[in-house]
Amino acid sequence: MNLENTARGLNAVRSKSPLVHNITNYVVMNNTANALLAIGASPVMAHAIDEVADMVAIASSLVINIGTLSGHWIDSMQVAGKTAVERDIPRILDPVGAGATPLRTETCKTLLKSMKPTVIRGNASEIMALAGSAVTTKGVDSSAESTRAVDAARQLAQATGAVVVISGAIDYITDGERLKEIKLGSPLMAQVTGMGCTATAVIGAFAAVVSDPFEAAWQAMTLMGVAGQRAARQARGTGTMQIAFLDELSTLTAEDILSEKGA
Amino acid sequence: MNLENTARGLNAVRSKSPLVHNITNYVVMNNTANALLAIGASPVMAHAIDEVADMVAIASSLVINIGTLSGHWIDSMQVAGKTAVERDIPRILDPVGAGATPLRTETCKTLLKSMKPTVIRGNASEIMALAGSAVTTKGVDSSAESTRAVDAARQLAQATGAVVVISGAIDYITDGERLKEIKLGSPLMAQVTGMGCTATAVIGAFAAVVSDPFEAAWQAMTLMGVAGQRAARQARGTGTMQIAFLDELSTLTAEDILSEKGA
Amino acid sequence: MNLENTARGLNAVRSKSPLVHNITNYVVMNNTANALLAIGASPVMAHAIDEVADMVAIASSLVINIGTLSGHWIDSMQVAGKTAVERDIPRILDPVGAGATPLRTETCKTLLKSMKPTVIRGNASEIMALAGSAVTTKGVDSSAESTRAVDAARQLAQATGAVVVISGAIDYITDGERLKEIKLGSPLMAQVTGMGCTATAVIGAFAAVVSDPFEAAWQAMTLMGVAGQRAARQARGTGTMQIAFLDELSTLTAEDILSEKGA
Repeated sequence: MNLENTARGLNAVRSKSPLVHNITNYVVMNNTANALLAIGASPVMAHAIDEVADMVAIASSLVINIGTLSGHWIDSMQVAGKTAVERDIPRILDPVGAGATPLRTETCKTLLKSMKPTVIRGNASEIMALAGSAVTTKGVDSSAESTRAVDAARQLAQATGAVVVISGAIDYITDGERLKEIKLGSPLMAQVTGMGCTATAVIGAFAAVVSDPFEAAWQAMTLMGVAGQRAARQARGTGTMQIAFLDELSTLTAEDILSEKGA
Repeated sequence: MNLENTARGLNAVRSKSPLVHNITNYVVMNNTANALLAIGASPVMAHAIDEVADMVAIASSLVINIGTLSGHWIDSMQVAGKTAVERDIPRILDPVGAGATPLRTETCKTLLKSMKPTVIRGNASEIMALAGSAVTTKGVDSSAESTRAVDAARQLAQATGAVVVISGAIDYITDGERLKEIKLGSPLMAQVTGMGCTATAVIGAFAAVVSDPFEAAWQAMTLMGVAGQRAARQARGTGTMQIAFLDELSTLTAEDILSEKGA
Repeated sequence: MNLENTARGLNAVRSKSPLVHNITNYVVMNNTANALLAIGASPVMAHAIDEVADMVAIASSLVINIGTLSGHWIDSMQVAGKTAVERDIPRILDPVGAGATPLRTETCKTLLKSMKPTVIRGNASEIMALAGSAVTTKGVDSSAESTRAVDAARQLAQATGAVVVISGAIDYITDGERLKEIKLGSPLMAQVTGMGCTATAVIGAFAAVVSDPFEAAWQAMTLMGVAGQRAARQARGTGTMQIAFLDELSTLTAEDILSEKGA
């Protein structure tokens, strides 16, 4: 458990308020922006090829999420990714639905080269698809057991140099050598759309203020788990879960974080 | 009242978790995904012409909603619709704003041919516009009395072979011969954006697991009404209405459903 | 304080239910639609170049927001703006992120000419960027003190003929001669995405029913402040803030409004 470091990381996000540039999907843009604001970061959404390089130039990190990708957006993702590599700011990739269609899998493979992600976060199926394993994704909420994918995550981390995060009932974080698991959160999180995308964006905020990407991803996922299980205690269903989760992100104190326990 | 069948249908959605492919509008994507997750279905949003056929190929039903349509999206809707016809999976059309602009009315007419909808759900004005009646739509929330449109719905059903649903203070479901009406729900539902779009998506989930489209649409609209009137009892305004509605969808038991009464 | 006029304006929105045509950003479309429905207006979102002129033709006001702009959208904004000028309906511009990238600043300058805005609402940095001041915007939530921008707002109003609104801890409304300030609201509003965009849309609704744009903007911003500070009293964090705000908009009575006091 890294609750103390997580509290410190959250504090750093709140005090530095990093500008996180998101090129993300239509479904979750509102959640993503609200989650980033709730933890004290400054979100910006911009996808036009005419401005992504300019926006990356003032951003502290770049988050790319392919959840509702299409041709023009892919072009912009490539340009933004390359610019972020040149500027050497953290780059986070969320391969939503990789494995579900060839377009998604192929786009991710191209992005691995152009944006050289610092962190990749997906569910087990998506990470396995990226790692080249033969898996079939059922939509974007895989029920494949996360544990089956840890080997794929480690291989993907070694092949790409990225920290790889698998989120699920248990979260796994690996840089190809180190491996941490997190047993926090609540099953209700999987019934709210965009919780994974939110996790990716929160990693983007932490990676902007915590120098080691492995540590940043671990802290961000710990925060998600802490906020998730606290929210679940108050929730009457998936609607109030979504709202209580934002309330937690925006009000969590160091003491709140330290008082939580994993499963 | 078909409360028992509705409870059975909801149970089937929860146990089979059908993958519902949505090509829908920007305003409601988040609501739609959350509503589908809340009832136990698996939502996926995908609109790129390069992947819609691949996504339809693994989906259990297709929902097309023209709420924020534009050229590229219309092309993708046509491809997705044709693929869904070939695969013979249920196809649901939401003609948002039909009658308000020529683009919307004409797009719907083209979609009627290419996607051969299994179910069409709209408000009274939209259904009348599709049926060729001369009506003027005021935005997307028509106040035209639903009853005036029942004849149009029946004609549209006979002409297209689709089950046609008019939602409003009273909902009507017809396949051109059978006609059911539902007096459930709450006036607060009309003050929350995307409730109609949510209904269309929920029909998509039910149509994937209930073989008779008329019965599927009837059950889905009954579920909307039950969840809506239960949510309205807890709501302090339109904000909590939206949240309580998701809470209801995600927690409703068969007993809860059977305990509700219509107006 | 103009609480009585604000109550009267809200009443006019509720009774006339103006159709507000929004060409706005992906992040806030849902909030915007819900806020407009909550105050009794009729929102419609439409951005296709093939239909914007037709939609403007039936709208009572036009709201253009560049938060997630791109080439095709800019083209549609120009067409919609020109049509709205021809029809002489109120035109509201939200220059989200003006100053952050050349694309945003340049697009706003072009829109100033084509749509001849009736009202412009932004934060201090955005207004200063439009007025030609040399400022650097940090993302879309500027922390520049609003007071520094009042001169820029007055100049922008004089140069364009628009009423200019700066929103922030203190809101300022000027038509180049008159100047009002509003000390209502809550700091929590800045932590919820899209509150500024909502304000712009609410101005669009008021401008459709209150003939003096200065008075319309003043009333709309007063309503935002009243609803915001009432919501903040109930909020447990930024999630419940967002929901309570909609509850307030949808249930506020004249008595509620008159009972509020500014800072």
